[in-house]
Amino acid sequence: MDAVIAAARAFLGDRLSTAQAIREQHSRGEDQTAPTLPDAVAYVETTEEVSRILALCNQHGVPLVAFGAGTSLEGHVNPVRRGISLDLSRMTSILEVNAEDMDCLIEPGVTRQQLNDYLRDQGMFFPVDPGSVCTIGGMCATRASGTNAVRYGTIRENVLGLEVVLADGRVIQTGGRSRKAANGYDLTRLFIGSEGTLGIITRVRLRLHGIPEAQSAAVCQFPDLAAAVNTTIVTMQSGIPVARIELLDADQMRACIRYSKLEGYRATPTLFLEFHGTEAGVREQAEAVEAIALDHGGEGFAWATDAEARSRLWKARHDAYWAAVNLIPGHRGITTDVCVPISRLAEAIVGAKADADALGQTTCIVGHVGDGNFHQVILFDPNDPAALERAWELDRKIVARGLALGGTCSGEHGVGLGKREFLEQEHGAEALALMRTIKSGFDPKGILNPGKIFRN
Amino acid sequence: MDAVIAAARAFLGDRLSTAQAIREQHSRGEDQTAPTLPDAVAYVETTEEVSRILALCNQHGVPLVAFGAGTSLEGHVNPVRRGISLDLSRMTSILEVNAEDMDCLIEPGVTRQQLNDYLRDQGMFFPVDPGSVCTIGGMCATRASGTNAVRYGTIRENVLGLEVVLADGRVIQTGGRSRKAANGYDLTRLFIGSEGTLGIITRVRLRLHGIPEAQSAAVCQFPDLAAAVNTTIVTMQSGIPVARIELLDADQMRACIRYSKLEGYRATPTLFLEFHGTEAGVREQAEAVEAIALDHGGEGFAWATDAEARSRLWKARHDAYWAAVNLIPGHRGITTDVCVPISRLAEAIVGAKADADALGQTTCIVGHVGDGNFHQVILFDPNDPAALERAWELDRKIVARGLALGGTCSGEHGVGLGKREFLEQEHGAEALALMRTIKSGFDPKGILNPGKIFRN
Ligand SMILES: Cc1cc2nc3c(=O)[nH]c(=O)nc-3n(C[C@H](O)[C@H](O)[C@H](O)COP(=O)(O)OP(=O)(O)OC[C@H]3O[C@@H](n4cnc5c(N)ncnc54)[C@H](O)[C@@H]3O)c2cc1C
Ligand SMILES: Cc1cc2nc3c(=O)[nH]c(=O)nc-3n(C[C@H](O)[C@H](O)[C@H](O)COP(=O)(O)OP(=O)(O)OC[C@H]3O[C@@H](n4cnc5c(N)ncnc54)[C@H](O)[C@@H]3O)c2cc1C
Repeated sequence: MDAVIAAARAFLGDRLSTAQAIREQHSRGEDQTAPTLPDAVAYVETTEEVSRILALCNQHGVPLVAFGAGTSLEGHVNPVRRGISLDLSRMTSILEVNAEDMDCLIEPGVTRQQLNDYLRDQGMFFPVDPGSVCTIGGMCATRASGTNAVRYGTIRENVLGLEVVLADGRVIQTGGRSRKAANGYDLTRLFIGSEGTLGIITRVRLRLHGIPEAQSAAVCQFPDLAAAVNTTIVTMQSGIPVARIELLDADQMRACIRYSKLEGYRATPTLFLEFHGTEAGVREQAEAVEAIALDHGGEGFAWATDAEARSRLWKARHDAYWAAVNLIPGHRGITTDVCVPISRLAEAIVGAKADADALGQTTCIVGHVGDGNFHQVILFDPNDPAALERAWELDRKIVARGLALGGTCSGEHGVGLGKREFLEQEHGAEALALMRTIKSGFDPKGILNPGKIFRN
Repeated sequence: MDAVIAAARAFLGDRLSTAQAIREQHSRGEDQTAPTLPDAVAYVETTEEVSRILALCNQHGVPLVAFGAGTSLEGHVNPVRRGISLDLSRMTSILEVNAEDMDCLIEPGVTRQQLNDYLRDQGMFFPVDPGSVCTIGGMCATRASGTNAVRYGTIRENVLGLEVVLADGRVIQTGGRSRKAANGYDLTRLFIGSEGTLGIITRVRLRLHGIPEAQSAAVCQFPDLAAAVNTTIVTMQSGIPVARIELLDADQMRACIRYSKLEGYRATPTLFLEFHGTEAGVREQAEAVEAIALDHGGEGFAWATDAEARSRLWKARHDAYWAAVNLIPGHRGITTDVCVPISRLAEAIVGAKADADALGQTTCIVGHVGDGNFHQVILFDPNDPAALERAWELDRKIVARGLALGGTCSGEHGVGLGKREFLEQEHGAEALALMRTIKSGFDPKGILNPGKIFRN
C-alpha cells in the first residue's frame, strides 16, 4: 500500500490525499452501511492517470474502488477492503456534441444536470434522470434509470460506447457511433451495471434525444393505492407512450406536501404524469390516460402546462427521498428497489405497504411504476440499535415478495453490498458462477471493488 | 468423434444423422463460403438433449455448430472444423404468451412468421423482421434486426431473457420478466450476438408490442440517390418516429419491379415508408416526411393505405435480395452490411455505388436507412473463377469507407467468417483480446463454433 501511495503521489501530487476528512467522505455512499476508510483517495483527471493507478494497484494487489458522486444506495463505494478510492468527479469535460447524429462524448464525472444545461440551446436532452445529482460514469456502472425510462429507456439503451481502463491499466474502446452493430461481443452492455468490478469507465458516448415539440404534465389523485397502480397497469397495457408515470403513496405525498410546499394536493395516492410529443399527440395521450384514471376512481387531472408549474412538480418528485427521510425528524431511511412485471405491480406494492403497516413501520412509496419499479423508503431511528435491523428485515420481506412475483431485487440501484444475498436465488447458482468467470477473466487479482456483487 | 456419434445416437436415435444429403444441407448458410460437411447432424428437441450433446462434445473436444434456419450470410454455420451441426429448427414450441405483460417464452426454432401468426388474434406482434425466414434463436445469436428496428429496436432491445446451455452442458437462465433490472452482469446481452460461440440458446423470452391503432405505408421516388438518402437523414434528425424507412436504389427497384411485378413505379431511387400510431399521429408523421421529401425533389407520396396494398409492397421489400440475385440469370450475390452514423450515410451510400460503378459491377442497394445501415448486393458470375474475388474486393472497399466514416462492418448480419478481418481495426487489439478472454472463460476447450468471430 505504501508503495502504491508513494508512486501515485509522484504523478498526482496533492491529488492523492490521505487526509482523514477526505477519506471519510469516501467511506460510503448514501447508504446505511458501516463506513470503511480507504487508505487514500486519488482525484484523477485523465485516462492516463487512471491507467497508471490501475497498473500500480494491480501490480501490488491493492484494492481500488471507483467513486463518482457517491450517491449509490447499496454500499457500492464503501471500500470494504480499504485500498484506493478513485474519485472521478473531476473528469467533467464534454468532449463532443454531434447534433446531426444526436450523440455526445463525455468524461465520466459529468452529471446529467451539467450535460442538460449544456445541451439545452441545441434542442436536445439526455433523458436518464435518477433522483440524485450523480455522475454519468456512476450511472453507467450501476445501470441507472429514472422517471423517463418508461419512454426513453434506461442508461443501457442510451449508451453507444465506452472507454474503459482494465484492471491492469490497458485502455479499450467499446461500441461505436452507429445506431446498431452486430460486430462481436457486446462489451458495452457488459460494463454497464458492472459496478466498478470489471473496469473503470473514463469516457462515455451517449445517445441524445430531441426536446419534444410539446410537453404537458398532470397530477391525478386516487382514493387508494390499488386504484393508482391499476391505472398505471392499464395505461401501460394500452401502449400509451407516456413519458413519465410516477406513483407517490399517501405517506410520500404527506412528506412532499410538507417538504416541497406542494399546495392544493391531498395526502392520498397520487400519479405524476408527463406526456411528450406533438401538440395533438400529447393531447391524445393525456385524454386516454385521464379516461383510464376516471374509470379507476381517479379524481380528475390537475394540469401543469406552463414550464414553471411543471418544473415545480418534478422538483418535488425529484426531492421525494429527502422529503421522506425528513418526515420524522432525526430519522434515516433505507430504500427498497423491487421491480416486477407490470401485471404483478398491484400485488407487489399493496402487499409491501401492508407488510410495513403490519409492523408499524413508517414507509414512503415512490415508484417508476410504468416500468414496474418502486422504492419504499423505510424510516428508522438511528439511535435505536435494533431499528436498522428491523428495517432490513422488512426490506428482505419486500424483496422476497417481488422475487415470488417474477421480479428482481433491483430495478435500478444495483447490487453493491446490500443485494448480494438475493442474487443466487434470482439467477441460480450456475448463472452466478458464470458472472464470476467473467469477473476473474477481467480482473484476475480481484482488485476492482472487491466484495461487491458477489458474496465471498 | 465416433464415440460422440455413438453416444448421441443412443439417445437421439434417427435424429442423429450422418446422411450425405443432410450433412450437405448443413455445410454452409446463404453465403458463398466453400462448404464444409459436418461429421453428423443432430436434430435436438429438448434442452436436455442439447445439454447432453454439449457435455459429450466437451468431454471429447469435438466442435459443435448451432444451426437455426441456415440463412446467415457470413459463413456462420459453416462447420469449418467439422464435428456436429446442432440443428435447433425443430424446437418450435411457443411456451407462454403473457398478454398483460406483453411478453412470451418460446423455443429457439420458432420463426418470426410463426410467432406473429400465433399472436395476431391477441393484438400483439413481434417487430424484429429480417428479410428471410429464420429462427429467433438464430436472430438472437446474430443480433439481427430488420425494417422495424428504426422504431422498435433490434433483437437486443426485444429480448428479456434467455435459457442457455453452456459448453460443458450446464443450463443457465439469464434476464427475467421485469422491464428493467440492475442485478448483476448483463449475461443476456452477452449471448446476443455471440454467434453460437459462447453457448446454445434453448429458450427466449421476448418483449412484444401492441399492434398500433393505425398504420399507413407510402412510397416516394427520387431523381437521385443523394436526394433519397438526404430525405432520410433529415427525417431522422427531425425525430419523426417512422416505423420503417427503407431505401432501394435504381438497380434494386429495377430488380423488384421485375421480380415482384411492382406496377406503377419507375426504376429510380425510392423510399418505402411506414407509419404507426393513432390515426392523427400517423397523418402528422406522414405529412412531415412528405414535406421533407418534396424539399429534396421527391416526387410525391404514393399511398398504400389498405392492408393488401401494404402487404404487397412489404413483400416486395422482403424479397429484395432474391429480386437482386435474379437480375442477371445465373448470377449469385454477396451482401455488404455497413452501418454508419446517420449524418455520414449519403457519403457512404453514394460512395459505395460509385465504387461499384467504376468497376463495372452490377450492385443493388437496399437499406434500413433510418438506422444508417445498408446492404449492397454485389452480383457475380459463379462460373468466372475470378468474379467472387472481385466481388470481395469491392466489399472490402465499401467496408473500409464505412469504417473511415465512423461506422461498422456489420449492422446486423454479424461477423461469422466473412467479417473477422475487420474486427481488429474496428475495436482495437485490446478490446478484441478482451472478447477472447470471455470466449476462453466460457468455452475453455473451444468447441463452440470454432473459427468464427476470431481469426486464429
Ligand atoms: C436521493 C436519491 C435518489 C436516487 N434516485 C435514483 C433513481 O431514480 N434511479 C437510479 O437508478 N438511481 C437512483 N439513485 C441511486 C444513485 O444516484 C445511482 O445509483 C447513481 O447512478 C450513482 O451515481 P454516482 O455518480 O453517485 O456513483 P457512485 O455512488 O459514486 O458509484 C456507484 C458505483 O459505480 C461505480 N463507479 C462510479 N463511477 C465509475 C466509473 N467511472 N467507472 C466504473 N465504475 C464507476 C462505483 O465504484 C460504485 O460501484 C438515487 C440516490 C439517491 C441518494
Ligand atoms: C434474403 C435474406 C435477407 C436477410 N435479411 C436480414 C435482415 O434484414 N436483417 C438481419 O439481421 N439479417 C438478415 N439476414 C441474415 C439472416 O437471416 C440472419 O442473420 C438470421 O438472424 C439468421 O437466423 P438463422 O435461424 O437462419 O440462423 P443460422 O444461419 O442457422 O445461424 C446463424 C448463427 O447463429 C448461431 N445460432 C443459430 N441458432 C442458435 C441457437 N439457438 N443458439 C446459439 N447459436 C445459434 C449459428 O451457430 C450461427 O453462428 C438475411 C438473410 C437472407 C438470406
